[in-house]
Amino acid sequence: MSIKLYHHPFSRAANVVVMLEELGEPYALEHVNLMGGAHKTPEFLALNPMGKLPTIVIDDEVVMTEQAAIGMYLADRYALGRLAPTLDDPRRATYLRWFFYAPSVIEPGCAAHSSKYEYRASAVGWGTYDEMLNTIEAAIGDGPWLLGDMFTMCDVMFAGTLNYMLQFKMLDARPAYLAYVDRFNARPAVQKAAAINGQAIKDHGLDKK
Amino acid sequence: MSIKLYHHPFSRAANVVVMLEELGEPYALEHVNLMGGAHKTPEFLALNPMGKLPTIVIDDEVVMTEQAAIGMYLADRYALGRLAPTLDDPRRATYLRWFFYAPSVIEPGCAAHSSKYEYRASAVGWGTYDEMLNTIEAAIGDGPWLLGDMFTMCDVMFAGTLNYMLQFKMLDARPAYLAYVDRFNARPAVQKAAAINGQAIKDHGLDKK
Repeated sequence: MSIKLYHHPFSRAANVVVMLEELGEPYALEHVNLMGGAHKTPEFLALNPMGKLPTIVIDDEVVMTEQAAIGMYLADRYALGRLAPTLDDPRRATYLRWFFYAPSVIEPGCAAHSSKYEYRASAVGWGTYDEMLNTIEAAIGDGPWLLGDMFTMCDVMFAGTLNYMLQFKMLDARPAYLAYVDRFNARPAVQKAAAINGQAIKDHGLDKK
Repeated sequence: MSIKLYHHPFSRAANVVVMLEELGEPYALEHVNLMGGAHKTPEFLALNPMGKLPTIVIDDEVVMTEQAAIGMYLADRYALGRLAPTLDDPRRATYLRWFFYAPSVIEPGCAAHSSKYEYRASAVGWGTYDEMLNTIEAAIGDGPWLLGDMFTMCDVMFAGTLNYMLQFKMLDARPAYLAYVDRFNARPAVQKAAAINGQAIKDHGLDKK
């Protein structure tokens, strides 16, 4: 079994390193020189016509893109019952709900809000910013994780997205969000991934530019 | 077993009717008077703090939102192996990839493009419009469905999204897209859902406004 992650530490692939560290399976990182346009070559576009990271290849045959899809696939394939509720677990519904919510509501909702993009909230899939803030808080609830005591890959997607949005001040820093991402960032896998991403920054001289 | 869909024919819940018709399980529609603000009442916001449709309740206990999450859940729970590849089926990766792609790339990508929202494609999750066009075409490929001969719930999400975007001229009408949605719209379940949505328009006097 081989897992290859096309990676750049300043891309959404950085959070897939967290997914892989939580998983605990061996994997390899393939650095993609985004500043040099390596993600727009014909070879890379054949894997992902979006020309974006993350992109992952498993056993030289399964090609996946979309951070959330990658996380869900890895958890179902390698950690079912541990990082993903089984299909007959009643928590599976909530797991899917917030797994889709992160990339399809939080991502565009924060981008639109922070860039002052005006849109009709009834027409778009991601609704209003204020309702999104309330929904994120409701999703976290009493915690500690989205499924209560069960930490899952959905938390990696959801907390990873919140981390990114908070870091770039694209999301209000409500106390409940900060407490949730603090819990997340204290996990050994998250800290190990941060070290790996930090090393990639050094290895590729990205700290000198 | 009971499935209740909070519904309005002019919302994304219209495509969940297709999902339910493909599923073949009994369900009930609960009309939500969007023009009257029924989706912003405290009762409804307790179900879905986004104040949006679709929202679905199963057996009076499982609450789900997010169209794609609902479709994936229904297929895994009631039609595994028929409308969803099983977890050990190699096609599961592609299934997840395009299931996430529809709401997190096509939805915001088309909305941003059609409203001339200018954004940094490297910063947002949905990339550039042109690369999205190419990726949709690559996803459809030779068809007839996203997984080749196997029609799945992912097609309902993907084709339903394309239908919507094409209808409102928010997406270029490439021949490959039109051929794909034509195949989709010819399915008996899709036609039955169109009749149900059309009847709801009449029942609630929405054709007279």
